[in-house]
Order: sequence, then structure tokens, then C-alpha cells
Amino acid sequence: MISNGRVPVTAFNPPTFKGGKEGEIGAEGGERMAALSGQGTPKLTSAVGNLYYDSILPYREDANTQTREFLARVVDVLLDYVQQVNDRNEKILEFKMPEEMMKVLDLELHEEPLPLRQLLEDCKMTLKNQVKTGHPHFFNQLSCGLDIISLAGEWLTAAANTNMFTYEIAPVFILMENVVLQKMRSMIGWKTGDSILAPGGSVSNLYAFLAARHHKFPQYKEKGLTSIPGHLVMFTSDQCHYSVKSCASVCGLGTDYCVCVPSDERGKMIPTELERLVRYHKDRGNVPFFVNATSGTTVLGAFDPLTEIADICQKYDMWMHVDGILLSCNAMSAEYLFMTDKIYDPRYDTGDKCVLVLSFLGVAWCIVTNTVARCREVPGKSGGTSGFERLMDRLMELSEYMVRRIREQPDKFHLLLEPEMVNVSFWYLPRQLRGIPHDKHKELKLGKGKMMQAGTIMVGYQPDDRHPNYFRNIISSAAVTEKDVDFLLAEMDRLGQDIIVD
Amino acid sequence: MISNGRVPVTAFNPPTFKGGKEGEIGAEGGERMAALSGQGTPKLTSAVGNLYYDSILPYREDANTQTREFLARVVDVLLDYVQQVNDRNEKILEFKMPEEMMKVLDLELHEEPLPLRQLLEDCKMTLKNQVKTGHPHFFNQLSCGLDIISLAGEWLTAAANTNMFTYEIAPVFILMENVVLQKMRSMIGWKTGDSILAPGGSVSNLYAFLAARHHKFPQYKEKGLTSIPGHLVMFTSDQCHYSVKSCASVCGLGTDYCVCVPSDERGKMIPTELERLVRYHKDRGNVPFFVNATSGTTVLGAFDPLTEIADICQKYDMWMHVDGILLSCNAMSAEYLFMTDKIYDPRYDTGDKCVLVLSFLGVAWCIVTNTVARCREVPGKSGGTSGFERLMDRLMELSEYMVRRIREQPDKFHLLLEPEMVNVSFWYLPRQLRGIPHDKHKELKLGKGKMMQAGTIMVGYQPDDRHPNYFRNIISSAAVTEKDVDFLLAEMDRLGQDIIVD
Repeated sequence: MISNGRVPVTAFNPPTFKGGKEGEIGAEGGERMAALSGQGTPKLTSAVGNLYYDSILPYREDANTQTREFLARVVDVLLDYVQQVNDRNEKILEFKMPEEMMKVLDLELHEEPLPLRQLLEDCKMTLKNQVKTGHPHFFNQLSCGLDIISLAGEWLTAAANTNMFTYEIAPVFILMENVVLQKMRSMIGWKTGDSILAPGGSVSNLYAFLAARHHKFPQYKEKGLTSIPGHLVMFTSDQCHYSVKSCASVCGLGTDYCVCVPSDERGKMIPTELERLVRYHKDRGNVPFFVNATSGTTVLGAFDPLTEIADICQKYDMWMHVDGILLSCNAMSAEYLFMTDKIYDPRYDTGDKCVLVLSFLGVAWCIVTNTVARCREVPGKSGGTSGFERLMDRLMELSEYMVRRIREQPDKFHLLLEPEMVNVSFWYLPRQLRGIPHDKHKELKLGKGKMMQAGTIMVGYQPDDRHPNYFRNIISSAAVTEKDVDFLLAEMDRLGQDIIVD
Repeated sequence: MISNGRVPVTAFNPPTFKGGKEGEIGAEGGERMAALSGQGTPKLTSAVGNLYYDSILPYREDANTQTREFLARVVDVLLDYVQQVNDRNEKILEFKMPEEMMKVLDLELHEEPLPLRQLLEDCKMTLKNQVKTGHPHFFNQLSCGLDIISLAGEWLTAAANTNMFTYEIAPVFILMENVVLQKMRSMIGWKTGDSILAPGGSVSNLYAFLAARHHKFPQYKEKGLTSIPGHLVMFTSDQCHYSVKSCASVCGLGTDYCVCVPSDERGKMIPTELERLVRYHKDRGNVPFFVNATSGTTVLGAFDPLTEIADICQKYDMWMHVDGILLSCNAMSAEYLFMTDKIYDPRYDTGDKCVLVLSFLGVAWCIVTNTVARCREVPGKSGGTSGFERLMDRLMELSEYMVRRIREQPDKFHLLLEPEMVNVSFWYLPRQLRGIPHDKHKELKLGKGKMMQAGTIMVGYQPDDRHPNYFRNIISSAAVTEKDVDFLLAEMDRLGQDIIVD
């Protein structure tokens, strides 16, 4: 582990609620308190801090004041965190190995209940030790930063504490969903039709598969696979999101019948290969019925050639699904995510145990979307530029800037390929490997370079089927500027130049 | 619509943040403001209220003060709502038809962005018009009230804004999950093993199905259904959660091969019927492999006889899955949820378009669970009573109280059956139908009674395969007292006694 010597402490005086009584006492358990880096620490009055869960609402109907004070203090902690996330002098994370983290956190479930005071401390410690995904120097995966309007929307969603099954139970949210879905359909030129919001890319792909199957073989739903004359086959590029293959397993097709179509050197599906494979399976009596095309692959950000694929789908009567990776979907791919060469025990990575990986935004998305959309311009009749569009343009501009900066330092960085999206894939060259011509042999050495966690920057990395480990930078947050890109490259160089690869 | 004449206004002076500047101005758009029932309304200073989304964090790094003020005011609105939810003088909802609601809300997505001031107004209007699921007089489905500790946990989750795929990206939350899962396994007596948290009952049932299939036929994953000699068959009671049947469709079995086993008059699966149907399918060359037993059915709250079912599963080498409906899972059943005899257009009920219905708590559950569990006693070595256990005992006690009160008023209420859980199923008898012996003919008339929305109470209702429409009351909130049960029964009588059924 390399320490950069920076101390992530900023003094500020957070505003506090007036709700509580005067005469605050310091929280007991000073040992863990000491870890809180001397920050202006919101405290509960002793009258509330010493209470337990069953002395506030909804257990005690006369406990309005106490309940408000407790929640107000929690919010103070959260507001401090929001401020830290956006402070470039703060580290992104204080990396600790799981065993060490367990000691710091005290997550044990006690037989005796803990007072509200302790809960406030737990909130602080949780945020102190978590990864600041909204930090301007976080370039790992698609976190999109911490959008304040979305945050407000999620807080409201939690307070509303309802579900969205029926208009009866969620009149406002159901209507919001309607408005958002209608707008989204109109944006792609649909005047009628229906749509649903899914909690992430994996579920979306499953829905698409089910819709295609039901469209072509409606009897399947009741009678199952035996009712179809031949084995169903689906096609996708070898660069697709891993959830596509998961569909084939879940739905009873078998992953052998999810055919991977080769992609070119840019990561795009090769249409002639698709047609060849469709014919191959038809000739064997199988039933090709579904093609998944990807618009923005997870690792390289490649776009499959949609028009050519559409022609083939029409010719062979197959359903065409476009897996468009929205920045807000936290799209992930198995290989880069669930790697086993990590410095901590990968058993802690529980994500790949799930069939359907769900985004944190979940079903709250429509509420948040509506809230966010109302605060920005949306593309309308007058054809004005939308706030979303402007943000995306800015992110692309920053990615292009990064590519330019990488090209300007060929001794230190090597670009894998010209990006089409915000994914910038490259190797960093430690001093030992500079001035040697770039070839497959050098790539192997580069891929062996040890990744490190100094806590000042965070960038994703993974191998693919043609290259050993490389960095994949993602710019998805509105907080990022050109200076942050410069900082990223300089910091990689500072931390990595002395690495020795054998 | 019946109005009860109560005005849901309580005067109180909410504490506010000190963060904002002095000299507050009233929000413009007075027309919609006027609808806010004169409550002490938190306002943004003009300096912040007139700002737009791109003048605060993360767009402007020098906008800490403005960002904090905006979020603090949003929280003021939410704290007011928390207080209202727990106020018995407030209505549960101000029911409006969708068309009317659309006019009140102004959900339109404008081409021009809206200022932060308007967003604050939108938050107020949203909460004003939504169903107060945490209200002590809300007895509809399993909402469990608005638990303040959970609310704090969800707010923190939103601020943390991360996912849980890897330890790298969510070190604290992954460890929390581990601790919670280990505790849950130890509570059911497992010393080893592994487990995952699912975002709801539907996904849990799907996981169980996939685990069973993979356990018995590991080749299925790659080779698909054609690799199995015979058609797979699963069994479940006719009272089961609707997601069980959905598994059969999604996974390619076909719903015809999800066999419904008859239940007795209490709603419990009949073991002899299960064995008969298993034999029937084996005789026809099919492959029985999975039995879903329910512990607490959705409508009647019935428990299937687990021991007898386990014996049959062992005898015929089938996987036994127990679908235990947690109160916190918002468990729902299609028929009572997606009814079409509603007073509003059921197209607004989008829930049944989803294959996997997801609980709002979603993946945040483990964080909330850990937070909540630390604030309560959990069953430990010393065998003490846990806070969760005490709450459940209390809810059962209240349900028994309700049954007693119903029995004491046989002229007005008729109990369907003795409940095993917090589900209390009954009919209300308007004056017209009193004094007539209870028989199937009378039941039909009772089932025709029009349900109404006065906004003072909210109780679920649905028919089943043996009875026309009846009320199903659920007590799941810690806020409920005996007085609330009395209020519920009195209010039903007040609102319903004059109903005429033809």
C-alpha cells in the first residue's frame, strides 16, 4: 500500500438543526469517536442520544421532537459526507483489508439493543470507510457521481415507503411513471405502445428475451419448451453483457444455445459471422429466434452495427434486441468485475451469486427520473438541447481530452484503441518498460503490473479475450474537469513509475 | 366518495436548519402553494430557491452552502411528513381519480428546467397526495409502518450511492451483509452454508427453483431442457404466491407443469393430494422435482403442513422449498392486487407487467437490516427475547384482539376463519343484511358491497376461489394499538351501514 501523505481532513462548521435541546453531551465510546478525524461532529442531546428504537415514532406517538432530532442529526452526518465526496482534498477511500475493517467497524449483532447515540456513530463510521463513488477522482465503473437532485428524490422515496403495484397504493408515483415512460417513448419516435422501467440491465435483457419468446411462440408460456419443434437459439456478440448468457441458463435454453458471434478488433459484432452462425443452426434443425445487439459494450464501449444486424434479423425472422447501456444503469461485466487476482479474498464479492444483479437505484428510478427530468430541460418540440444531452456531450469531450493527453505522453501511456464512448482503455508503462517497441510480449508484461490502492484515484481494470490486464477509465460524473483528468494521469505516473515487472 | 368531515390539519412549528441565509421569500406559484393546508412551510432563501440543478454540487464545486441548504429544506419537508404519518388526526389519503390527480400535480416534463424552489414544492405535493402507508389506520397489505431506524438506513444508503458487487467498491456493506447472513443462518441452526439476500419473495422463489433444478440436473445449465429425460413438474398449493407459477413460465417449464395441489378449508395444502398428483405425473413419464410449501399464505395467512410434505419429498426425491413470507417483503398475490373492479382505470396498475416484482427496499435491505438489528436485541446465546420477536408477538396479540372484537359484534361482522397469522379475513354486514342466517347466498350479497375510500382507514379486500370479495386486514405496524382496531371496526360501520346491495 502506498500512502500519498495527504491528510483527508478539512475543517468546516456544518449547519445543524435547531430541533434538539441545548446542552449536548459527547458520545460515549470515545475510542471509535477518535477515528473521526476531528471533524465538526453533530451530536444528539443526552435526552435523545440515550433513547432506544422503541422510545421514538412509531412506538411512541408522543415522541415527535425526539424523532425529528434523531433524523436531523443523521442528516447532518449525511450532509457532511456529501460535502466530503465533492472535496478533491479528500481521499476516495481508506482501503483496509476485510479483517482489519471488521475490527474498526464493530458490526456485531448484540443481544442487548444499542442506543440511538451509537447508531449515529455507526452512520459516521460507515461513510468514513466506504468508497466515495461521487468523488471527482473516481473513474471506476459507471457511478455518475452523486447527483444531488437524485439524492433528494431517493430520500423522498424512502420516506414515502410505498410500493408501485397499483394506483390505489401509489397514485402519485404511478402517474409519474406514466409521464416518464410516455416521454421516453416519444423521444424514440413512438406515438403509441407500452413500456416498463426495469431496475437494471440484467432484468431488461431478461424481459427482452421473454418478450421475444412469447411473441414467436405464445404457447410456450403454458406448454413449455416441449411445444416447440426444435431447439431455440439466441445470438449475441462475444463482447456482450454477461447477463445475456445468464438469460439462456435461467430460461431453460441452456448456455450452449446462446451463441457468441465473433467481434472485430474494435469489439463490434461481425454481421457476416452472425449470418453464418444463423444458417449453421437452421441447417441443424434448430430455431434461431433472438439476436442481442449491444450499443456500448461494457468494457470497450463498442457499438454493434445495428442496420446490418437488423437486415439479418428481418431476413431470418428473428427478434432484434438492442442492449443500450445507460450510464445510470451501473452496467457491469462479469470478467472485469469478479476477478480473482485481487489483493483481498474474493469471497467477499457476492455479486456473481445473483442471477439478476440489481441496481441500487432499483424501482425508485422512475421517481428519481421524473424529479431529475423536471429540473433539466428535456428535448421538446422546439428541438432545444436537453440538459441530459449537454452532460453527455461534456463527458464525451472530457474522454476525448483524456485520449489526447494519453497520446501526448507515449512514453508513459499506451492507448488500446480509439474509444467510441466514455470508456478509455489503456496501459500505463512503468519506467522499466519504456523505450521498448510495443508488441504482444510487452503487453503481457504490462498486464502483470500490480494495481495499487493509494486512495487518491480509483480506476477500473480487467483483461479481455485478446489482451492481458489493462485500465479502463470511465468518465461519468458531472463533477469531473480537465484538471481531474490531468491529476489522474499524473497520479498514476507518480504511484506506478517504479513498479518492477518480471 | 364519502367525506368524514375531518380536516387533516395540525399546526406545528417544524425545526429548521440554520444553514440558509436570512430573508426568506415565499415561493412563487401561489396557486399550488395554497393547496398545502397552511402548514408551517419550509422555504428556500431566494439565493438558493432561484438556482437550478447545475448551480449546486457536483456541477459547481464552490456551492457547498447552497447544496446543504437545498437538501436541508427537502429534509424539513420529509420530517413534516414523518410527523403527519404518525398523526391519527391526519387522513391516510386524499383520494383523487387519475385525471384529477394529473391536474393537481403538474408532472409535465418541460423544455425549460425548473428552479430548486419548484422542486421543493413538488416534494410537498407528492407527499401530500400519496398514501400514508405508515399511518396507524393503514391496514392494507404488509407495509410494516414507517420504521424510523430503517428510514435513517435508507437515507444513508442513498447518500452512499454505491453498489454491492465487490468488496473493493462496497467494503462496509459487503461486510454488513456477511454478518447479517451469518446471523440468519445461525438462527435457523446452520453452522455452515451460504446464503444471499433477495429483493423480495418473487426473486427468492425463482432462486429456489433454479437451485433445485441445478442440484438435480447440473447439465441443464449448458444443455437446456432437451437434456432431461421427461418433462419437469413442480408442485405448489392452490393458495401459493403468484410468483411460483411465474417461475414455471419464465424458466421454460410451462405453467401447465406447475401443478396446483388442492388445499383444505383453512387454505393448507392437503398432503394426500400432493402424493396423488406426484404419482399421477410419474406414471405419465414426467419428472416431479420441486415442491413449494408456503408458511403464511398471502391472503389467509395459512401454514402448509411442512413435516408431511417433507416426508413425501424425501420419498420421491424432490426438492422442498419453503416460501416463508416475511412481513417486510411486501408479499402480494396477483388476484387481490390486480383486480379489475376498481373505481379507477386499472391500466394504472403496472405491477403485473413485471415478471419479477421487486420490493422497494431492494438491495438496500441488508444495510437496513444490519442497522435495525443493531438497535434491537437479537436472539442470542442467553436465549433472551429479541426485539423482532417481541414486535411479532405484539402484532399477533393485536390480531387476536381484533378477532375477539369481531366475534363480539356478530350482527355487524362475520369472520371467515380463525387466523393463524396477522391476516384477519372477514365480511362487514350493512344493516340491510343483518339478522339473516349466514349462507353462500348471503356471502354473494356481501361480496357485492361497494368498497369505499373515505381516507380515514385503508383495508385490503379480494375474492378467493371459494368466496366472493371479503376484507383481509393486516396488522404489521408497530404504531397500531387496541384503540386503532376499535376505530377501524367503528369506522367501517359508520361508513358502511347504509349500503344497499341488490
